[in-house]
Amino acid sequence: MRTIEIYDTTLRDGVQDVEIHLSLTDKLRVAKSLDDLGVQYIEGGWPGSNPTDKQFFKEMRSYDLKYSRLAAFGSTHNPKHKAENDANLKALIEAKPAVATIFGKSWDLHVTDALRIPLERNLEIIRDSVAFLKPHFEDVFFDAEHFFDGFRENRDYALSSLKAAHEASAGVLVLCDTNGGTLPSDLREIFDVVRKELPEARLGIHTHNDSDMAVANSIVAVKSGASQVQGTINGYGERCGNANLCSVIPALELKCDGKFQCLPEGKLTHLTTVSQFVAEIANLRPFLRQPYVGRSAFAHKGGIHVSAIQRNRRTYEHIEPEAVGNEQRILISDLSGRSNILEKAKKLGYKLEREDALVGDLLAEIKDRENRGYEYSSAEASFELLFYRVMGWSKRYFTPINFRVTDALLQGEEVMSEATVMVKVRGQVEHTASTGEGPVNAMDRALRKAVERFYPCISEVRLTDFKVRVLSGTTQGSPGTASHVRVLIESADKNSRWSTVGVSHNIIFASWNALVDSLTYKLFKDDPRKWPNHKP
Amino acid sequence: MRTIEIYDTTLRDGVQDVEIHLSLTDKLRVAKSLDDLGVQYIEGGWPGSNPTDKQFFKEMRSYDLKYSRLAAFGSTHNPKHKAENDANLKALIEAKPAVATIFGKSWDLHVTDALRIPLERNLEIIRDSVAFLKPHFEDVFFDAEHFFDGFRENRDYALSSLKAAHEASAGVLVLCDTNGGTLPSDLREIFDVVRKELPEARLGIHTHNDSDMAVANSIVAVKSGASQVQGTINGYGERCGNANLCSVIPALELKCDGKFQCLPEGKLTHLTTVSQFVAEIANLRPFLRQPYVGRSAFAHKGGIHVSAIQRNRRTYEHIEPEAVGNEQRILISDLSGRSNILEKAKKLGYKLEREDALVGDLLAEIKDRENRGYEYSSAEASFELLFYRVMGWSKRYFTPINFRVTDALLQGEEVMSEATVMVKVRGQVEHTASTGEGPVNAMDRALRKAVERFYPCISEVRLTDFKVRVLSGTTQGSPGTASHVRVLIESADKNSRWSTVGVSHNIIFASWNALVDSLTYKLFKDDPRKWPNHKP
Repeated sequence: MRTIEIYDTTLRDGVQDVEIHLSLTDKLRVAKSLDDLGVQYIEGGWPGSNPTDKQFFKEMRSYDLKYSRLAAFGSTHNPKHKAENDANLKALIEAKPAVATIFGKSWDLHVTDALRIPLERNLEIIRDSVAFLKPHFEDVFFDAEHFFDGFRENRDYALSSLKAAHEASAGVLVLCDTNGGTLPSDLREIFDVVRKELPEARLGIHTHNDSDMAVANSIVAVKSGASQVQGTINGYGERCGNANLCSVIPALELKCDGKFQCLPEGKLTHLTTVSQFVAEIANLRPFLRQPYVGRSAFAHKGGIHVSAIQRNRRTYEHIEPEAVGNEQRILISDLSGRSNILEKAKKLGYKLEREDALVGDLLAEIKDRENRGYEYSSAEASFELLFYRVMGWSKRYFTPINFRVTDALLQGEEVMSEATVMVKVRGQVEHTASTGEGPVNAMDRALRKAVERFYPCISEVRLTDFKVRVLSGTTQGSPGTASHVRVLIESADKNSRWSTVGVSHNIIFASWNALVDSLTYKLFKDDPRKWPNHKP
Repeated sequence: MRTIEIYDTTLRDGVQDVEIHLSLTDKLRVAKSLDDLGVQYIEGGWPGSNPTDKQFFKEMRSYDLKYSRLAAFGSTHNPKHKAENDANLKALIEAKPAVATIFGKSWDLHVTDALRIPLERNLEIIRDSVAFLKPHFEDVFFDAEHFFDGFRENRDYALSSLKAAHEASAGVLVLCDTNGGTLPSDLREIFDVVRKELPEARLGIHTHNDSDMAVANSIVAVKSGASQVQGTINGYGERCGNANLCSVIPALELKCDGKFQCLPEGKLTHLTTVSQFVAEIANLRPFLRQPYVGRSAFAHKGGIHVSAIQRNRRTYEHIEPEAVGNEQRILISDLSGRSNILEKAKKLGYKLEREDALVGDLLAEIKDRENRGYEYSSAEASFELLFYRVMGWSKRYFTPINFRVTDALLQGEEVMSEATVMVKVRGQVEHTASTGEGPVNAMDRALRKAVERFYPCISEVRLTDFKVRVLSGTTQGSPGTASHVRVLIESADKNSRWSTVGVSHNIIFASWNALVDSLTYKLFKDDPRKWPNHKP
């Protein structure tokens, strides 16, 4: 078994993503989580380019990392002076990480058109920069920028750039597909040539996803002898992003006949958690369809598929979801039938028989609601509440009596939203009002105001997403403003996340229903006495 | 040059995506757009499985497709009876598409564990099903489900399933990586064996993205001799999705030394538009980092990159974005917008100079609005009104003064919506009110009531679509119910169709703005005296 070094650059190349802006605290939290996962290297930033990154390396000195070594990123020295006078290289040394990684030019076009210096001078710069850094670090890695593009246009020159770094004792020569334009078949051929030309060098791979090939290219490189893979969590990065480590790692560990190990024993099962954590810190909506770790990666919707996986999970699952810390999901949808319901019931702890009358009731109820535009596959909390009600659960934490929401444009450009809400809670009628940023926000605030006095845990609920879908295609809805509307609300507290749905021809009422379900689900889930006598 | 058949299954396998629910009208619009793009085959649905798909094929008979052939999907016949008695096969014939595609089992595990029939019986079923369908269609394609998994476990049996379909004259044998678990190197080896075993058969490839390899696998298959690629727009599909045609097509056309052609000449430049259109219809947020067609695919953030691409675009762009209809974006700089504005002005009949002050004004106005969440690419009518206003057009058909909308749940399950509207029209203040099915419908009715007396042509306007997107990603918006909301309204009269946009943190106000623009645009477009003196 060969150990493949995972070099995470989420904190440096990943933050080049248009949507990502991390604070110092964010970066420290991500670094901690990467160490827990057990990647070999964490590239923390470019200390020569901005104060946050400089501070990051300073702060990191107070942390003991358990599995990872810290790396700092920089470029070869400025052509205008010598290595020892270069502020950028000095910043690397001052950052005091275990490893320095510097990038240099491998593509002659960049040397002549971007740097505008003679080709030979660039090789000298690479050699001097690596040699100057070497005594200050455990290791120095060389990122050969645009290596594959360079190789295609001037093969000898691209190879010379690697040789220059190698002669100066760079520990790993990292071949970069900087523009992400290389196909796996071309990458393999080029990799094979490099291996022949530099048989003793340790090689790494750094790819971008502009051709949708970053993961495939990383795997090809490892199979062709690369010992280090650079990438980011969730594939974050500039343009189309970097190689997604959440796909690279399981492919190497689970799909290559046990030839490669990337993480310490037992850590692969943490992958989904780390993926979600980094998305959370970056404040990005997780990508549902993301391979291996996405929420839909093992979600089954079609009835045929569901009945097959019940007999044998391998029929529609390429790996066991648990291997990467993910889980199977059975979706309730209009394509589904009895077997989906049974499976879902099983997950909620009920063993029902196929011909059970309750299953028929539940199915009829769901079908009726789906005809009206309800969609439970992405609103599992609403489904769960519906399920328990059909099963006989009848507790009511609060009962809405009525509400009114007014939006008024009175003067100028500002609209005022005001909601009044009347709710019965524990036998008492609460009548409250609130303004808000928009009608749904006003209703949300008024409703909480009414309920929170009785159930303080309501204050922990945050609404994390709000989706509106106009159902122009349902039988009841005609297109245009009189259509049916489906509202999905995602909520979270410190422990979990749940989704609820509401449907009406009135967008306000649809939102109201989803809100009521969201707060009810929170109370239900936290309620130690939700089953007064016994679970139905 | 070899022509590769593109077989789009967005309308069948794509709609298995957890997030996608298409109405009949949605499906017809997507089919039209795929034909415009010029894919060879459009798989419209599974007529034997649900009434919408059955209806789709019926409706499609009224359309002349310019480039595409229609295909319907189904399964091999039920083991319990003969092909000629199978309802599913009959539904295919009744659907009357040019091509029928049926899937059958190639993996012995599925035959024994899911179908629970003898292995030999499955081969007979494949043979009989293809043979029975053949006379009714231009061609019959065979999707060999789980072919690669099956091959790994029982190579001879997997091959026999292909041979059965081939003997019965299936036009294309499509090797399916149904669970998406195959790596490109394995796929290539298996493909090569199949080519040797069935040298005369035409082969196709159908992959899923569970290993992040769907696109790489499709390219490998074509290089190994596949003549058909099945996939979906934007990679939509069950679990992690299908092969993304928006990545497959440009890789084959632009990155394989001109060996392959997928679309009619000149159509590749429509790819970005089609990708955006399908996302819009599916009401899904476009994936910014999507290769080739994503909004960030050619977005440059770093200062070094920006100055390099200004010298030579090849330095950080793997293809010319225009080749796929996308565009370069320079972030935090107005360089990107100016040429777009000039281009748009030209389309409206104005030849403006790059340095014209009006161009700067317009650009500033658009940037400001885009920062607030406006999006003009799908709201051309709103853009046109904005453009003429900045150019000096100042006619006002009506001026909104104020409005108020109330939604109230009073008794039971019914919500009442009532709007009052105050508008100045031709110097007169009109104050009207209306109820409606939901708040937007109430506002729409009240506004028309106020304006129609002066402009009877308003009665011709129908609102044909209404879309809501919550912008949790804008700088102003925090997630949850206090986010910014963008409303897109599509309107039509007997001659034309137009789209308008409104943005606000208040969904009601966003809708109001889009409504006001819609009616204004109708009056503008029908007004013979819109330029009192001369066009500005």
